Amino acid sequence: MSKGIKSGKQVMSHVINLERLMETIKYSNKVGQIDETGIRRLALTIEDKIMRDLFTIWLEKEELEIRVDDFGNIYGRRKGLRNDLSPVMTGSHLDTQPYGGRYDGILGVLSGLEVIRSLNDNNIETLRPIEVVVWTNEEGNRFAPPTPSGSGGVTNIFTKEEIYESIDVNGHTFREELEKIGYLGDGVNRPIEIHSYVELHIEQAPVLDREDISIGIVTGDRGFNIIEITVKGETGHSSGPPMEVRKDALLKASEVIVCIHEMIKAYKSAMITIGKVNVAPGHNSHIPDNVNFIIQIAHDEEIILNDIMEMVKEKSTALVEKDGMEIEFDVRVGFPRAHFSKRIVKELEAVTQDLGYSTLHMLSGGGHDANNIASIAPTGMIFIPCKDGISHNVKEYVSEEHIEKGANVLLNTVLNLAQQEDSLD
Amino acid sequence: MSKGIKSGKQVMSHVINLERLMETIKYSNKVGQIDETGIRRLALTIEDKIMRDLFTIWLEKEELEIRVDDFGNIYGRRKGLRNDLSPVMTGSHLDTQPYGGRYDGILGVLSGLEVIRSLNDNNIETLRPIEVVVWTNEEGNRFAPPTPSGSGGVTNIFTKEEIYESIDVNGHTFREELEKIGYLGDGVNRPIEIHSYVELHIEQAPVLDREDISIGIVTGDRGFNIIEITVKGETGHSSGPPMEVRKDALLKASEVIVCIHEMIKAYKSAMITIGKVNVAPGHNSHIPDNVNFIIQIAHDEEIILNDIMEMVKEKSTALVEKDGMEIEFDVRVGFPRAHFSKRIVKELEAVTQDLGYSTLHMLSGGGHDANNIASIAPTGMIFIPCKDGISHNVKEYVSEEHIEKGANVLLNTVLNLAQQEDSLD
Repeated sequence: MSKGIKSGKQVMSHVINLERLMETIKYSNKVGQIDETGIRRLALTIEDKIMRDLFTIWLEKEELEIRVDDFGNIYGRRKGLRNDLSPVMTGSHLDTQPYGGRYDGILGVLSGLEVIRSLNDNNIETLRPIEVVVWTNEEGNRFAPPTPSGSGGVTNIFTKEEIYESIDVNGHTFREELEKIGYLGDGVNRPIEIHSYVELHIEQAPVLDREDISIGIVTGDRGFNIIEITVKGETGHSSGPPMEVRKDALLKASEVIVCIHEMIKAYKSAMITIGKVNVAPGHNSHIPDNVNFIIQIAHDEEIILNDIMEMVKEKSTALVEKDGMEIEFDVRVGFPRAHFSKRIVKELEAVTQDLGYSTLHMLSGGGHDANNIASIAPTGMIFIPCKDGISHNVKEYVSEEHIEKGANVLLNTVLNLAQQEDSLD
Repeated sequence: MSKGIKSGKQVMSHVINLERLMETIKYSNKVGQIDETGIRRLALTIEDKIMRDLFTIWLEKEELEIRVDDFGNIYGRRKGLRNDLSPVMTGSHLDTQPYGGRYDGILGVLSGLEVIRSLNDNNIETLRPIEVVVWTNEEGNRFAPPTPSGSGGVTNIFTKEEIYESIDVNGHTFREELEKIGYLGDGVNRPIEIHSYVELHIEQAPVLDREDISIGIVTGDRGFNIIEITVKGETGHSSGPPMEVRKDALLKASEVIVCIHEMIKAYKSAMITIGKVNVAPGHNSHIPDNVNFIIQIAHDEEIILNDIMEMVKEKSTALVEKDGMEIEFDVRVGFPRAHFSKRIVKELEAVTQDLGYSTLHMLSGGGHDANNIASIAPTGMIFIPCKDGISHNVKEYVSEEHIEKGANVLLNTVLNLAQQEDSLD
């Protein structure tokens, strides 16, 4: 913080060093780069190891105390004046999707580092310690379920066995691979108590970008439900049964998919996603007799979500039974709803007002580390816009202006929280 | 042939021994039995080997000359009076689909054996030699492409290299597995010239069964064309883009599948089958951006088939481009049309009339060994009804009455052809 800026209320806010943060991001872009602007840095691969090693050097340079726990989560601790008090924590994840972008996850980690660097620049002491954290395997692309693993492990949402035994496509376990990259730490290093957790992340949806708003104050996560649908028909040779007698499970599943998407248009802000379809027997010359797919369904309002779930079942049952075929449903919670700390939301409101940034209160969608941490500690999230909402994609893009604003909000929020003696909730 | 039966025209027809044929079928049902009524006898597996070994013993018992060629095709030759003349050939395949039935393929082989046994019973000599043949890997489930392999090899439709190098899911080559089961024979054993080829097979479609007709006189194979469609959209996180801005390739592909099936209703006897769908990136939390599927399209009339192909392209392009997405087509021939011998069709007409059986002239659909043989020799096929047209399925069922009638037609046709000195076409 070479200088502060003045808000309308004449409160001095602190600011980060954008040039330094962007340079750090630039380094990270080289670790797992694909195409021109993409990143492939799957959990516990050599790319993940290199990124962790680099990040650890940066933590050491800031003279932080570094711990690694038994899930490979990395903690860099900056001491406070009162080290008997629980720390304020900030961070996110370093891993990406196979065709991921430059900001999803790592922006929160490197902004946390920048918060520390800025505090160090200005010799600012805080009452509470501050910890920057890297959570292992948020994306869950290589190892899933359970996921996000690292934050799910320390919160006991998943058992150690579940996490350790999850395997990648080659049959390698999480534990093997964690050990192989040298990040199998000790269970005593897990956080004991967290005063508050704040995570900066890109929105991964286009709302802020379209509305031209700088900061999303995330009040919780809408989570999502899952309906797994299996449509059962009759197989036969492709040159066998005439069309009018067939019970083609793929055709019927296609009708169901189209129908559900048509129906969902009536529910504003509802989201449904079908990411893959399993077709059996799965041979070009066989009429499919079994088609299975998972629908992720989300809505801001729980009561409306339940309505939608019922409608999906009702509409698809009618469609399938009309032609004498069968349908099965397996309904479950994908990611549970998360509720973030009202006190942190208030802190974010105050900080963004002081900085003079435009804000929108919003829900996040399914699966951030913050959701897990919210189950054990007061938690908040800061969203910044990403262009056209494109994420999990090599085209993911965030402007420097928004990175700066997001990191400034993170800095001041973490700083304010770290000066509070009382626990939050 | 313990006795002949008299037709309306007072011609004495010969008949097979149904009890013996059914007993032979019963033995074959034990080789690869699954569930109660199904068979799994994939090409070049231990089950295939056992079935071949059994069949070879039966051939030996009839004192046939046995040859095995370099594709593992087995020939059992019954000498004629004029062994300088090319043989009449009959047969089919022993392999099945993974969840196959008791009749697809093997019925033609065992009926061929029964023809020989009946001729031997009655010491009937023929002018031409008769050969019963087993073609290797007709189903192509384990090794494909190219398929059917054995009949495709001897007709030079596929090269020896193509066939030998095709691999199963475990990476084993056709050649390795052929050698392993002891059926890698010699190229000199391939047929040099074939006077005529007649194959008995179940219909694998419900036409004869529904129309209550005993014998299908197959005039050719309609083959099928392939359109491989790739729909390209945009990926993103399932909790990211709102529904109205998504370019979901799976939703669009589903619309295309529904639309094509709707359109096809206008074309009587047209058949389209989509056996599997590949969805990328293929993760539950990712909006699909690439969906690929193969449509098999068949119609009795080539000109109408071409119309349908155009309509598929036109309709699906319109649907996809309407939402600013992309579509790609790869159009090719799946199995080519085959034309069977008019002389053999006439022979079948005469024989069935003499036997007093009801008949229907029809086309077969995509992929019998007879299609391949038709490219080098006058060829015919006899279809018998299978219940509800269900085949490639453990529920496949054929009545004894129809087995008897089919085998009787085969016997008399083969016998008549084997007494002809002249070549057919």
